[in-house]
Amino acid sequence: MSWILTADAIDGLARGAAVLGTGGGGDPYIGALLARRAVDTHGPVTVIGLDELPDDALVLTVAMMGAPTVMVEKLPSLDEVVAPVRALGASLGRAVTHVACAEIGGVNSTIPVAAAAALGLPLLDADGMGRAFPELQMVLPTLYDVTASPLAFGDEKGNVGVLNTVDNHWTERIARVACVEMGCSIMISGFPMDGNIARVALVDGSLSHCVAIGAGLVEARAEKTDPVARVVEIIRGREFFAGKVVDVERATTTGFARGRATIDGTDGSLTLSFQNEHLMAESDGEVLVTTPDLIIVLDHESGEPITTEGLRYGQRVRVVAAPSDPRWHAPEALAMVGPGYFGYETASRRFDGTREPVL
Amino acid sequence: MSWILTADAIDGLARGAAVLGTGGGGDPYIGALLARRAVDTHGPVTVIGLDELPDDALVLTVAMMGAPTVMVEKLPSLDEVVAPVRALGASLGRAVTHVACAEIGGVNSTIPVAAAAALGLPLLDADGMGRAFPELQMVLPTLYDVTASPLAFGDEKGNVGVLNTVDNHWTERIARVACVEMGCSIMISGFPMDGNIARVALVDGSLSHCVAIGAGLVEARAEKTDPVARVVEIIRGREFFAGKVVDVERATTTGFARGRATIDGTDGSLTLSFQNEHLMAESDGEVLVTTPDLIIVLDHESGEPITTEGLRYGQRVRVVAAPSDPRWHAPEALAMVGPGYFGYETASRRFDGTREPVL
Repeated sequence: MSWILTADAIDGLARGAAVLGTGGGGDPYIGALLARRAVDTHGPVTVIGLDELPDDALVLTVAMMGAPTVMVEKLPSLDEVVAPVRALGASLGRAVTHVACAEIGGVNSTIPVAAAAALGLPLLDADGMGRAFPELQMVLPTLYDVTASPLAFGDEKGNVGVLNTVDNHWTERIARVACVEMGCSIMISGFPMDGNIARVALVDGSLSHCVAIGAGLVEARAEKTDPVARVVEIIRGREFFAGKVVDVERATTTGFARGRATIDGTDGSLTLSFQNEHLMAESDGEVLVTTPDLIIVLDHESGEPITTEGLRYGQRVRVVAAPSDPRWHAPEALAMVGPGYFGYETASRRFDGTREPVL
Repeated sequence: MSWILTADAIDGLARGAAVLGTGGGGDPYIGALLARRAVDTHGPVTVIGLDELPDDALVLTVAMMGAPTVMVEKLPSLDEVVAPVRALGASLGRAVTHVACAEIGGVNSTIPVAAAAALGLPLLDADGMGRAFPELQMVLPTLYDVTASPLAFGDEKGNVGVLNTVDNHWTERIARVACVEMGCSIMISGFPMDGNIARVALVDGSLSHCVAIGAGLVEARAEKTDPVARVVEIIRGREFFAGKVVDVERATTTGFARGRATIDGTDGSLTLSFQNEHLMAESDGEVLVTTPDLIIVLDHESGEPITTEGLRYGQRVRVVAAPSDPRWHAPEALAMVGPGYFGYETASRRFDGTREPVL
């Protein structure tokens, strides 16, 4: 089923994407600003379901790569957003037919809207993760042997590069050092896929899901009901901690925003470890939830999602867990995005939606 | 005038290039090995003079980029040498007609021979510097508004990238970080030029000059005359110091081999500062010769050129200065390759071939 994404719907999409982005993907309002400007200039974007994608489509993902701490200060121009897509299409020698989101997260669910508008192409109601992850090879298409490369990248100065690498780790390594050198924030386009692959490899319906989450949040506030409870219901998650942010350690190193946050609640304290995204939640030495499941920090009252770079001392927050796309729990997927990959010495603690709250 | 470069001539070319390479450009024998293998497999290379280059030729330079300290341990394959040329040709959408040397230096005067042989293309009797310099934008074509970009790069694993940058400094910056990440040594192809530009922008006759230097060195030894004196005569230089290497400080940082060497002679000591190439010679606080003029270290007896990474405690050496291509002394050229650019706080000390030896 296809639908039209107008400028009015972009804030809701951004808000929902920031919820599923588990703290990563950059400031949703930065991406929403750009997407609204693109839609105002070039007209609304047609969003199409995976079931409507033709076999011979050429799908490219569009994303911003870098440290969200830098992204918030470097709003890309539309020229910058479309340059890597054009460079990659030229390198492939084929017309790009559809744009897709690599991940669901603040910036990276709205930047592709801007790209689709500026390029006059339809956007898929889908993404590569169903959440956000910090490294570019961490998408479900990797499990279907889709490679990130050829991948194009570009910066606000007009520098553009196209990489053809032997595997996704090399794409990540080379693009990451280029990203750091180019100012810690670049636009990328990659993961070229034919329609028949994209239909199975992507997470279906992500954009509609984001719009529903964003709408639910706003409606609950309008109805004076608890917006956090509404979000939890829509994402089939569970609130497992509430408290006040009492400490945030954060460093922007090797192109990532890494750190940890401590939240004090009535019955103890919770530590969140993040690398762009929240990756592990612990309390009193017990690991409660880990990547790949979703750890989401929401404002206590408004239910607004808080990104890892937006965490501040004194914020009153509620922490929600939700299950990831089940494919992320396959052994080969856990090797790519499980806690061990990020250097946390724990097994993956799978979120169980049927269980009582952990605390 | 065109001539045929056979396998037998490659050692002489490499030796002469190592002389003019002022200590940089990597170990000449590594490049010579590869060039001989390519000529054995694919046949000899036709070397053509700039006067024979047609206006509509498409010339690309081929070079190895990285720290010579690493290059000596990573002999590239022929596949690795030709991959960036093919990638750049494909990106330009035009057939490459001629290969050129970006610089004169051990590896980088023989690697293009290997590329020309493997690609079945003629090689120009010319190069972009008339010596070696450590950064890729440091070529005379830069003074003629030829840009390094589009530039292709590749490694031994099979990773390839093509950069389109806004200026040569950005090509250098992005390629350099990619180079470091890819193992401190990569193959590059860039500076695409039409024939009419290449004819004026390159240094004419460099390869013939190298072959003559290499032949002179070997002949002098056979005739039991002084090979250093023969080299000095051929390059119109002057020997200005002789002594024993008593100290070498060397570090491979940010993709370069940086350091300094101290040579004790009968009347004092000489300090050579290098960054891949020798860039400044000082004695007792007096600057004697600086970049862009050539500072060349030769073995005391054999006259064999010694690269910066080949400098060892106890070597008995003779140090020769020679004038660079005069275009390097233009103010805009000195801004690019003068001592100030490399962080040495001295004005360029121009070598004067008519002067008495400085010491």
